[in-house]
Amino acid sequence: MAKELTSRSENYSQWYNDLVVKADLAENSAVRGCMVIKPYGYSIWEKMQAQLDKMFKETGHSNAYFPLFIPKSFFSKEASHVEGFAKECAVVTHYRLKNDPNGKGVVVDETAKLEEELIIRPTSETIIWNTYKNWIQSYRDLPLLINQWANVVRWEMRTRLFLRTAEFLWQEGHTAHASKEEAIAEAETMLGVYATFAEEYLALPVIKGVKSPNERFAGAIETYCIEALMQDGKALQAGTSHFLGQNFAKAFDVKFQTKEGGLDFVWATSWGVSTRLMGALVMAHSDDNGLVLPPKLAPIQVVIVPIYKKLDELEKISVKALEIKKALEAKGISVKFDNRDTHKPGWKFAEYELKGVPVRLAIGPRDFENGTVEVARRDTLEKNSIPQEGIADFVEKLLADIQENIYRKAYKFREESTRTVDSYEEFKQVLEEKGGFILAHWDGTTETEEKIKEDTKATIRAIPLEGDKTEGKCMVTGKPSKQRVIFAKAY
Amino acid sequence: MAKELTSRSENYSQWYNDLVVKADLAENSAVRGCMVIKPYGYSIWEKMQAQLDKMFKETGHSNAYFPLFIPKSFFSKEASHVEGFAKECAVVTHYRLKNDPNGKGVVVDETAKLEEELIIRPTSETIIWNTYKNWIQSYRDLPLLINQWANVVRWEMRTRLFLRTAEFLWQEGHTAHASKEEAIAEAETMLGVYATFAEEYLALPVIKGVKSPNERFAGAIETYCIEALMQDGKALQAGTSHFLGQNFAKAFDVKFQTKEGGLDFVWATSWGVSTRLMGALVMAHSDDNGLVLPPKLAPIQVVIVPIYKKLDELEKISVKALEIKKALEAKGISVKFDNRDTHKPGWKFAEYELKGVPVRLAIGPRDFENGTVEVARRDTLEKNSIPQEGIADFVEKLLADIQENIYRKAYKFREESTRTVDSYEEFKQVLEEKGGFILAHWDGTTETEEKIKEDTKATIRAIPLEGDKTEGKCMVTGKPSKQRVIFAKAY
Repeated sequence: MAKELTSRSENYSQWYNDLVVKADLAENSAVRGCMVIKPYGYSIWEKMQAQLDKMFKETGHSNAYFPLFIPKSFFSKEASHVEGFAKECAVVTHYRLKNDPNGKGVVVDETAKLEEELIIRPTSETIIWNTYKNWIQSYRDLPLLINQWANVVRWEMRTRLFLRTAEFLWQEGHTAHASKEEAIAEAETMLGVYATFAEEYLALPVIKGVKSPNERFAGAIETYCIEALMQDGKALQAGTSHFLGQNFAKAFDVKFQTKEGGLDFVWATSWGVSTRLMGALVMAHSDDNGLVLPPKLAPIQVVIVPIYKKLDELEKISVKALEIKKALEAKGISVKFDNRDTHKPGWKFAEYELKGVPVRLAIGPRDFENGTVEVARRDTLEKNSIPQEGIADFVEKLLADIQENIYRKAYKFREESTRTVDSYEEFKQVLEEKGGFILAHWDGTTETEEKIKEDTKATIRAIPLEGDKTEGKCMVTGKPSKQRVIFAKAY
Repeated sequence: MAKELTSRSENYSQWYNDLVVKADLAENSAVRGCMVIKPYGYSIWEKMQAQLDKMFKETGHSNAYFPLFIPKSFFSKEASHVEGFAKECAVVTHYRLKNDPNGKGVVVDETAKLEEELIIRPTSETIIWNTYKNWIQSYRDLPLLINQWANVVRWEMRTRLFLRTAEFLWQEGHTAHASKEEAIAEAETMLGVYATFAEEYLALPVIKGVKSPNERFAGAIETYCIEALMQDGKALQAGTSHFLGQNFAKAFDVKFQTKEGGLDFVWATSWGVSTRLMGALVMAHSDDNGLVLPPKLAPIQVVIVPIYKKLDELEKISVKALEIKKALEAKGISVKFDNRDTHKPGWKFAEYELKGVPVRLAIGPRDFENGTVEVARRDTLEKNSIPQEGIADFVEKLLADIQENIYRKAYKFREESTRTVDSYEEFKQVLEEKGGFILAHWDGTTETEEKIKEDTKATIRAIPLEGDKTEGKCMVTGKPSKQRVIFAKAY
């Protein structure tokens, strides 16, 4: 196999990078921190987008598009927001180039300096709430339920393909409501949508929780999150949904006439998931042979590879293969028949394993005689000889089994990697030796959280919304704790 | 009607702006030259995207995503490209803000200056060909057929919603080929896709042609275009497809091993359409009452408005309306039943006319008794009483009729507005008095083209690929002309 991967046990981080590049998902570009999403990777992202978009629309949201640029002054209007984003902003200062007087290409034309610098959006609350100001006058204009698919830029210093890039693709929902309760319900609804999407499509079990004040979105009153566990025992935040209170309405003076005839500031939420989910998908399920894709997000769900020596064998096999392809496609399954004569079957097997195609069908001369097909499933690498008769039904069921099995495996891994500890010593030991999610009591203060982070690099990933809510005592300070929270090292 | 429009005859330009804003398509943002695409406008754009994306995939293309930023040095590598775009580039020079030492918000952190400035992509040939360099080694890697949906920025000084904005949304196809012939065939294929899309979906008749050297894309050998005529007699370029020769391959040193074992530069095309098509859609078909949307792109194809005085009437009518809605939806038709009691039927009629909903069904107590529905079509504003029995079939056929009729009307208008002239005097007179497309002989030189532009503001919109190819003499210089070309004033 030409495209050999570093194994996970050897170097997990290298394995991830190798895999993303070699499976044609993405690569680094010539621009520092920015990636190129390659066609195969983008086709998975398109499947994610299509499903999420459907779910957003089913919950009453419409798409719209707001400017890439944010005037610098907008940024300062919400104090904690600017605090959170100012240090990683790409800034546009000029709007023209000119020929270099020294004849060396082009240079910035200093006479074309913007009066006010423009920030490339790192997130769009400010420009959107400045717009909502004109859209909202009365309770009749509410709720306003809008989503945007867009690129955003955060000037990260240490970047990794999909997980942390200077530019990334995402969706950002921005909703406006007449009451606090309705806004909170919206933030929770969208958290639910994300959790459902993660579990049913990404096959990724997630913990629903809220962030500690320290980890909240800059400008939020409450940040809801879904947290997943990767195979190396590190956590990955897979989506967030924020209850923004009236912070942005106050910053941009967005008031509405209430049903009762009063005047009040509008209540807000925002919520987003990004191409980071691509990284989660890779890290959660894949193995040393390559990607393992959940069938619901696999661009190619089934590949058919003919095994032959002579051309007349290929001809006969092709007839059968195309018949099977047609039967599968009639069930809405995406199929590729790879009859290229430029590559050997073994090469193709390795290639489709690398690409994570969930089911591989191989048909050779003996299969042709026996009326069978060799069926290989990517998740377990099992192979079986199956009758051609009824193969479409068999594969349809197999795809559903694979989707479930991938989820179950990830769930089992997370359960086995989630540990309850009661002392800080034990905490440090478990974190060091095993990683994973650690459930521990915490006194609710930022001081304690920061001490733990300094000591161990672990952060509070989530204060779980579900599960055990027994009170206890903080493992560090011994002060009262309302419930155990989840600690982990995180991406 | 609260949202009255300026009429077209009064002020066409104002009518357009009024309509775009009042029909909730788009509005100007707080950022100079950038628009906000509102949910209703965006939902039309989504329909365009979905259809174009389907057509791109059917012709073998895949989507991918390349960085928003282009290093300044890449720009200089293709001489005419930088010449064409350098004067309208948004330039990123810094990557951090800091608190203003004077306590006034945030300022650019001068210590965070980029070593090399980054240009926000005005188009992506340079960053993409720099990437292709690593993707293409051999003829086996070709053709490479990739499309990108993205935002781009061109710092235009005079902007108009959809037609010319600093930031706009578009798709850009970038393909790589092993031969000149194949690349030209690709550029022509995509021109065909655009023409089919314009005519069958936008209901917009277009002329397929090539641009004069003066109007070519910066870096192209040949620019193919589709040109449409707006109701005010001005032309609008609706899409372009470029044969780029080996220009970008040479600029970025992209060579491939040929089948014969040699080494050659790769041949390229690029092609794009943008949110400008939204402007074309509005300008081509709409009237003084509002939008006229072709059914294939209308977010709501049918609206049902109940007419009632008493609540029990509404109840009875609702049962019937929901029955009809269901029958229409079973045919894949999108239907809105507007039973809001906050607005009168007359208000709703005006609102849906403004929004361009192709078919309106009104059901009142008398309709209920007679088993009829009042059917109004948006394109002709005709109203008819139609039996409820079989209404779904009737509406389905009506939607197809409307789609056709809108096209026919625009086609007829264009035919009537296309005039053949033989002298420059006549040319100037027709242009001044009537506008429209003018077919005239031209000597093929940029000098003559520029003289005509200076004298009259008309430009060569296209050298038509089809139609009359008779030779003649240039209307200005009397020199030989190979065929008549199309002149017009243009958006």
